[in-house]
Amino acid sequence: MADQPSLDDVVAATVVDPGSTHEFRLADRAQRNEELFPDKDQAKDSLKADAQAIDELQDALFAAQCGSLLVVLQGIDTAGKDGTTKAVFKYTSPLGVRVHPFGKPTDIELAHDYLWRVHQVAPRNGHIAVFNRSHYEDVLVVKVRNLAPSEKVEQRYEQINQFEKHLVENGTRVLKLMLHISKEEQGERLQERLDVPKKRWKFNPSDLEDRKLWDDYQDAYETMLRRCSTPWAPWYVVPSDSRSRRAAIAARLVRRELEAMDPQFPETDYRPEQFKID
Amino acid sequence: MADQPSLDDVVAATVVDPGSTHEFRLADRAQRNEELFPDKDQAKDSLKADAQAIDELQDALFAAQCGSLLVVLQGIDTAGKDGTTKAVFKYTSPLGVRVHPFGKPTDIELAHDYLWRVHQVAPRNGHIAVFNRSHYEDVLVVKVRNLAPSEKVEQRYEQINQFEKHLVENGTRVLKLMLHISKEEQGERLQERLDVPKKRWKFNPSDLEDRKLWDDYQDAYETMLRRCSTPWAPWYVVPSDSRSRRAAIAARLVRRELEAMDPQFPETDYRPEQFKID
Repeated sequence: MADQPSLDDVVAATVVDPGSTHEFRLADRAQRNEELFPDKDQAKDSLKADAQAIDELQDALFAAQCGSLLVVLQGIDTAGKDGTTKAVFKYTSPLGVRVHPFGKPTDIELAHDYLWRVHQVAPRNGHIAVFNRSHYEDVLVVKVRNLAPSEKVEQRYEQINQFEKHLVENGTRVLKLMLHISKEEQGERLQERLDVPKKRWKFNPSDLEDRKLWDDYQDAYETMLRRCSTPWAPWYVVPSDSRSRRAAIAARLVRRELEAMDPQFPETDYRPEQFKID
Repeated sequence: MADQPSLDDVVAATVVDPGSTHEFRLADRAQRNEELFPDKDQAKDSLKADAQAIDELQDALFAAQCGSLLVVLQGIDTAGKDGTTKAVFKYTSPLGVRVHPFGKPTDIELAHDYLWRVHQVAPRNGHIAVFNRSHYEDVLVVKVRNLAPSEKVEQRYEQINQFEKHLVENGTRVLKLMLHISKEEQGERLQERLDVPKKRWKFNPSDLEDRKLWDDYQDAYETMLRRCSTPWAPWYVVPSDSRSRRAAIAARLVRRELEAMDPQFPETDYRPEQFKID
């Protein structure tokens, strides 16, 4: 297969550097970036290789129980949260991966603090959890639509950083991917949902309301990326106008986290010879 | 590809007929049965076709939200609960499938009735849940090892039947597969776990204790199959000494349930033309 871009190059092209978040501007990040994968087939080959490696790494993680991985996917409607999940975990068995979508909170969830429902579904040891949307909605839609007092929202960035630090210190790696698409691309994808009968169920008229607030959302995302890209859980901005490259980049980053955990099939504390099977 | 055995033939070869459970004897069921798939390659081809169809059916189910499917996997150690899950859902995205393993109950779980933890993870609308072990452990290990008074265990068969009826009446199909292996085959598989370093973590010395109680377990399984194969949730006994045939049979049965649900991408209650995307 064609060469894959190095993990370092992928990180360099996508990370929001926790050391200089004050300089970060979302407008500086392209929604389409072909430098990592000049051609589409290269992206597809890379995705396949990584998705297969992720399957093997996950098998080992499941056996090793040496920690867990939380993958947070954020992005505006149609950015590709479902598609990325399907592609990256195409070869991974559901034994050790759970996807948690976060929709509008229920009454019971609203009766608790906003991290309550999130903490409940944090990944258990040996597992991968994928959050389709996440606690970050509490500084995105909640902020843009004024669903909580602004001073409450203001407190949340640091609360979230501390919550994630707690997870990391207790054995969960946190990988946060913002799927970054352009307004033009979103327009085409929404139109596609209307045009293709099999995709129509995904269309929600309220998506158009959010689209009208495009600039407010971009601002809220920028603030989130600046304030919550931390040394223990940095944000990565994934150019997502190209579906194949989006998935290939995400897979590189997921694989990198799993390799850093270096899961090994555990040694056993007995000698196999000591057992006799009658 | 080679012909697949018809769904009717697969059902006829595996179901515990709810109409004549009093006649059922587990000893009458072979652990190796090559009638459905005379050769292994045919089983592999059939599995692949069904696993791909299951992926597509699950996509439609996720969109259609027309009910949910609960797959219960029971079987003695090494019978292949993990392997069956991996094989049958090889192509299915984790978006709509959740696997729930049931181990020794926690203190909190023990402080509730035995169906409490089970009900909590029943599949939501549009989803598939796979139970790796289940509430049936409460009439299997609990019975064999006398972990509850026998009159309590005795009540559970009917309680479980009523619980499953409740699920079915409320939109969840329940497919129950007992993975049936021989004592010889288990012996070989346990030995394999000891011999192959990568499999050793799966070996648990307590499995040998259970193996000593082989006949008691077979009796408990037989009673469970007789008393809990109901018209709304029949049991299927899957010959499991051959791994490839086991997975192929399970996939046929899972596909059959999903096809019976006939999930259709939903019609929308608006005309696509009424929306303009700016």
